[in-house]
Amino acid sequence: MHHDVKKVVLAYSGGLDTSVILKWLQDTYQCEVVTFTADIGQGEEVEPARKKAIALGINPDNIFIDDLREEFVRDFVFPMFRANAVYEGEYLLGTSIARPLIAKRQIEIANQVGADAVSHGATGKGNDQVRFELGYYALKPDVTVIAPWREWDLLSREKLLAYAEKHGIDISKKKNGGSPYSMDANLLHISYEGTVLEDPAQEPEEDMWLWTCSPEQAPDEAEYIELEYKGGDIVAINGTALSPAAVLTKLNQLGGKHGIGRLDIVENRYVGMKSRGCYETPGGTIMLKAHRAIESITLDREVAHLKDELMPKYASMLYTGYWWSPERRMMQAMIDASQSTVNGWVRLKLYKGNVIVVGRESKTDSLFDPTIATFDEDGGAYNHADAAGFIKLNALRMRIAANARVKRG
Amino acid sequence: MHHDVKKVVLAYSGGLDTSVILKWLQDTYQCEVVTFTADIGQGEEVEPARKKAIALGINPDNIFIDDLREEFVRDFVFPMFRANAVYEGEYLLGTSIARPLIAKRQIEIANQVGADAVSHGATGKGNDQVRFELGYYALKPDVTVIAPWREWDLLSREKLLAYAEKHGIDISKKKNGGSPYSMDANLLHISYEGTVLEDPAQEPEEDMWLWTCSPEQAPDEAEYIELEYKGGDIVAINGTALSPAAVLTKLNQLGGKHGIGRLDIVENRYVGMKSRGCYETPGGTIMLKAHRAIESITLDREVAHLKDELMPKYASMLYTGYWWSPERRMMQAMIDASQSTVNGWVRLKLYKGNVIVVGRESKTDSLFDPTIATFDEDGGAYNHADAAGFIKLNALRMRIAANARVKRG
Amino acid sequence: MHHDVKKVVLAYSGGLDTSVILKWLQDTYQCEVVTFTADIGQGEEVEPARKKAIALGINPDNIFIDDLREEFVRDFVFPMFRANAVYEGEYLLGTSIARPLIAKRQIEIANQVGADAVSHGATGKGNDQVRFELGYYALKPDVTVIAPWREWDLLSREKLLAYAEKHGIDISKKKNGGSPYSMDANLLHISYEGTVLEDPAQEPEEDMWLWTCSPEQAPDEAEYIELEYKGGDIVAINGTALSPAAVLTKLNQLGGKHGIGRLDIVENRYVGMKSRGCYETPGGTIMLKAHRAIESITLDREVAHLKDELMPKYASMLYTGYWWSPERRMMQAMIDASQSTVNGWVRLKLYKGNVIVVGRESKTDSLFDPTIATFDEDGGAYNHADAAGFIKLNALRMRIAANARVKRG
Amino acid sequence: MHHDVKKVVLAYSGGLDTSVILKWLQDTYQCEVVTFTADIGQGEEVEPARKKAIALGINPDNIFIDDLREEFVRDFVFPMFRANAVYEGEYLLGTSIARPLIAKRQIEIANQVGADAVSHGATGKGNDQVRFELGYYALKPDVTVIAPWREWDLLSREKLLAYAEKHGIDISKKKNGGSPYSMDANLLHISYEGTVLEDPAQEPEEDMWLWTCSPEQAPDEAEYIELEYKGGDIVAINGTALSPAAVLTKLNQLGGKHGIGRLDIVENRYVGMKSRGCYETPGGTIMLKAHRAIESITLDREVAHLKDELMPKYASMLYTGYWWSPERRMMQAMIDASQSTVNGWVRLKLYKGNVIVVGRESKTDSLFDPTIATFDEDGGAYNHADAAGFIKLNALRMRIAANARVKRG
Repeated sequence: MHHDVKKVVLAYSGGLDTSVILKWLQDTYQCEVVTFTADIGQGEEVEPARKKAIALGINPDNIFIDDLREEFVRDFVFPMFRANAVYEGEYLLGTSIARPLIAKRQIEIANQVGADAVSHGATGKGNDQVRFELGYYALKPDVTVIAPWREWDLLSREKLLAYAEKHGIDISKKKNGGSPYSMDANLLHISYEGTVLEDPAQEPEEDMWLWTCSPEQAPDEAEYIELEYKGGDIVAINGTALSPAAVLTKLNQLGGKHGIGRLDIVENRYVGMKSRGCYETPGGTIMLKAHRAIESITLDREVAHLKDELMPKYASMLYTGYWWSPERRMMQAMIDASQSTVNGWVRLKLYKGNVIVVGRESKTDSLFDPTIATFDEDGGAYNHADAAGFIKLNALRMRIAANARVKRG
Repeated sequence: MHHDVKKVVLAYSGGLDTSVILKWLQDTYQCEVVTFTADIGQGEEVEPARKKAIALGINPDNIFIDDLREEFVRDFVFPMFRANAVYEGEYLLGTSIARPLIAKRQIEIANQVGADAVSHGATGKGNDQVRFELGYYALKPDVTVIAPWREWDLLSREKLLAYAEKHGIDISKKKNGGSPYSMDANLLHISYEGTVLEDPAQEPEEDMWLWTCSPEQAPDEAEYIELEYKGGDIVAINGTALSPAAVLTKLNQLGGKHGIGRLDIVENRYVGMKSRGCYETPGGTIMLKAHRAIESITLDREVAHLKDELMPKYASMLYTGYWWSPERRMMQAMIDASQSTVNGWVRLKLYKGNVIVVGRESKTDSLFDPTIATFDEDGGAYNHADAAGFIKLNALRMRIAANARVKRG
Repeated sequence: MHHDVKKVVLAYSGGLDTSVILKWLQDTYQCEVVTFTADIGQGEEVEPARKKAIALGINPDNIFIDDLREEFVRDFVFPMFRANAVYEGEYLLGTSIARPLIAKRQIEIANQVGADAVSHGATGKGNDQVRFELGYYALKPDVTVIAPWREWDLLSREKLLAYAEKHGIDISKKKNGGSPYSMDANLLHISYEGTVLEDPAQEPEEDMWLWTCSPEQAPDEAEYIELEYKGGDIVAINGTALSPAAVLTKLNQLGGKHGIGRLDIVENRYVGMKSRGCYETPGGTIMLKAHRAIESITLDREVAHLKDELMPKYASMLYTGYWWSPERRMMQAMIDASQSTVNGWVRLKLYKGNVIVVGRESKTDSLFDPTIATFDEDGGAYNHADAAGFIKLNALRMRIAANARVKRG
Repeated sequence: MHHDVKKVVLAYSGGLDTSVILKWLQDTYQCEVVTFTADIGQGEEVEPARKKAIALGINPDNIFIDDLREEFVRDFVFPMFRANAVYEGEYLLGTSIARPLIAKRQIEIANQVGADAVSHGATGKGNDQVRFELGYYALKPDVTVIAPWREWDLLSREKLLAYAEKHGIDISKKKNGGSPYSMDANLLHISYEGTVLEDPAQEPEEDMWLWTCSPEQAPDEAEYIELEYKGGDIVAINGTALSPAAVLTKLNQLGGKHGIGRLDIVENRYVGMKSRGCYETPGGTIMLKAHRAIESITLDREVAHLKDELMPKYASMLYTGYWWSPERRMMQAMIDASQSTVNGWVRLKLYKGNVIVVGRESKTDSLFDPTIATFDEDGGAYNHADAAGFIKLNALRMRIAANARVKRG
């Protein structure tokens, strides 16, 4: 029943679950396993994964450990924020945006080492399996995908632990330091699902949150920051030029300090059910607010409205895992085309959970014209009488209709 | 050049500007003036307008003063919030939503008293002239519209004051108690434009804000509230049934107390320029967050996504004044059709500018099914293997394309 | 491996394929089979299915034969045409729109006879399996669905015939009188797939087409017809009031005579591949053209544009089988709300494949106002000067942008 | 009241109307007039305009006559057809697409000769004034626009003729050789409005149509043609490589011969009223059908659907004159990005008004995979069982909802 597999590239975190998967792959498929561990800013060391992989019998040449933080922010997070992407009005897509990068790198390694299969640790109920696998198939259409959670019978934690013990896998330090939640983290966010969160009527406990303090515990003093934009991306904070990953790292630290970016929602998964998730996206929450502010003075109205009308569709594409699809690329071409004028700075006030825009300016691309907008006399920049004709013709179709109604009584 | 007008219904606030307009209409058009003053929750007494109108020579029979607060919230604000309407990602449309009601009532009065014209005090540069006049024309296509700010030469405050003095209009207490801002208020919000706000790089001064305290000055203790929804509208707060206007009044008080609902944006006007506006929408900010939360457990995914995709268009319709258009009615029919299942309650935590959803439940209409969403074994409610086929077929078109690329080399 | 099934309702045509399925269900599931045969205008007698079912051992009480033609046109075809639904610019959704009705009726029968399963004869590669089953699941969520083509090993025609012979099923008169194509027919259309059509570079042979003559063979004389609309639906042809099914029957006859409604396309299936299909939709082709014509004088511009913008999504919903979804119902509410003014008549000229609109009028709801549209002097109905202001303000944002570009050099 | 104008560039056809305008500009504004006459394929000689301009006193250096046919098709018509643009389901935008080119060239000339104004002969009721002027303002924001039809009092034909006679303008050969219709022509189409067409209930007379024969008079023999596409544009017909203008010229000849491309509609103008127009677009009608056919095998499904969903908005942008807007450019970037794979050929049968696709193929970019689409056994290219999971998960949200309804009774 199992496919004939020779070599498989596993997305390997070094934690309990993927260690069990590693072993299970060896046992079940009798194949060579290549591990791939990426630093995408999840906040854990990735080097320890090497020792664990070796302990599980992986050939050192088959161990890949990459620092993908800059690529992650530059080529995935930033393009997404150009679109002001928000799923279902709330969710900043922190998990969604990381999966395509992992998938891409896994396939690159598979091509490099001549592997015929890839594997991941996502469950059969969630969105992540879709996000991984759509990426795999789009980039390497003939690849064999092994999703152990959909195949094996280790569906309870007890069985998993038993399997681990039996095979000598270290279970002393459980993933997430013993947090009961199902979690995922990267430079953009950390997510929490499961256990008590499965009742949407219940408030999450304060000690669940790991990255941000609560607004109550945040400083009593507000902090002002200034973000500089170039082509729709942040290139400097408070006058200091920073790389994409450094920008997000810095904003995470600022947001976390000021209790910014917590989210508690019920969302609609691609596989069909509603689920409750909690998220911390401190830097991303700041970025969204700031990007809208710089766009507000540098984007044409209709361009901005078109972006707003298409955003939900773009956000859904990312949420459901279609980053590598032709329709996402096509839409990205349009979004990126809109950002060449998005240059300038935004000043923000951070205070106890609030991100408040207090100033925005673009020396090179502002479309805000105070001589026209002013309430004072404008020296003829705007002719008030034009408005009468504008309104009259915009109303014409409704007047004709109303007249017709009157005529017919 | 002026139309021949016999009787005009003026939207009259009793303030300096509309008093000058009243006088100017009498002088310029030599016509009978009917005044209409509405309480839509702007927070000022409306009765004083009667005495002022009489002082300006208006026949008492020609003075209409209405309390429209319930109608405003029930038939305008609530339907708009069913759509989660937000203009340009930020603005809750507080001014936009009040104009159609004023226009409708003015036309009703015009029909009642046999007036052939209507007039308003909106300037020739703003959105409000459009919102008023599209309503007038849609409801009474042959009406003559007089927009003094587009016709007269009193375009500076000095000229206006001189005209007022000359005609014995009281200028002792200037509008807004001397606030330098151009303001508009109703039960949903208060807005500020002009003067120092005309530089978007500058933060507004703290003493501009009238309805909310700053987050800094808000209580150090969070407050929990519970909102009950029926058919998408709030019907009770903390267990007490309330009328629509009472709901919004209560939420304004709660939001104002906790520093909630301040907004500072640059927006795109319908007449073509960008303008900077500041808004306080304390109750509305709470309502938007809560409505999305109750929808998150009671709306089908695709229904919710369709609403999200159409929302920007709906919001634009309201912003640009097309409330009385057939396309808005048509879209409202769809939105309202989606709300029959939006029943249940939402619990919120209000704290220093933050509106935090901490619980939501619907005994009658929840689509959240914990037996399916659970991370624990689900007793067969969901078959993990289904996901493999789901992904395979969703990926098929991308696999075919990738295979074709490979084949062609 | 097979579910435990007690009683199954089979969509039974009486043809070879579904007769084999009937037998296979009995053998494989050892369950009671209920047959359901519907006349939806496919042009074959349905009564013979009764004898065949009895011959295969079906209890006469378990045989359901319904004439659904009126319901089909009234509640499915007509609502769809109100939306001007066209999939991928060409396809009039003839097969798509029939499946939801079959599914609904099957479930009604299942509930009536206490069946726990339903079955259909659609293959595992096509759209129809999805359309049937989404309907089943939406209307009876716990039903067991048996799709023999996805389960059995009779995947070639040879095996199927062998099975039929072995079980004494009549194979003398093959389905479609020996046509080599895979076909589907109902009152709206007939479709052809397979064999030589699998090469999209090849023109179909003339003798494939069953319902229409070729344009070449159509009469040399054009024929004029007049359709009367009420609420967006056709209620009379050439002055004679007709029921929905009679309308479509008549238009099929007229279209077929004049060589109207042939279509040859490559379309994108929901399950991921492209397929080539040929269709004859004589009456539907006339209806689409006529409906747009009556709407052109009775619908407001923005209503019409909103319908046009949403149409592709609506058409996709139908194509992919989501008729019974909440999002389709929600969208239908909007479409139907737009049709109350769609009253009047349209005159058409039919000639050798062409449907030419030659006149349209609405005594009650026309928004065409000749006094305004005229090139002659209009007596002030339209003020040319209004256009200057209209254009000036619509251009303002582009002028501001161009000025800003100039200023910056 | 008239602006102070020194030099004006007039879009000059050489006909009566623009000759009167020329004279009227000289008289009214006392300014230097520069004439611009373009050959965009309207089918009339443009050189005679030179003599007429000279006769009206224009300095030969101020006479510009350009052949813009290649630019017109290459940079305007072809990009528009990449989008499959159709306005209100019917109109191929023949007039709309020419105006932006005229406007652009007029502004180039204005910049070259140092003119401060531009002028055109479009009336105050139509769309063309908007299309011209939005172009002018977008490209030269400070330009003065003179629209004589909105300013003068020559609003009847009698007054116009009287003015012409008084100023010695040749009225012997009236525009359009005496056609009573208001017409506009270019390489893409010819349009007719006015007189008897102002009653939408009346069929146009046969002798109105100038470019196409009627289907009745078209040849009794069908003609097959083959179009070759590269990057979404036609580059060859029947194996002969042709320039863009030559492609359209050839297709016009073919379409005209076979009675293809007549259209008779009531459309919604941007300025608010409905108007009735008849159009002949022989080549364009062929191009639209063929472009959809080549896309049907070379575009991904979701890319095609996204194009279809956005098309009405794109078509509206062109119809209403926003070619030079940032939102059109942004959308064009997306459309063009989709066309790189649109390569191959389409074979068509032309017969008495019908354009019938009879074959399409792409050696390099076809996404049609017969091994997957086939009804025969496919050797495992497609796994039927995948469909079960696909359907199950797509149905899940509806099953959960139905279950919830059942549970609540």
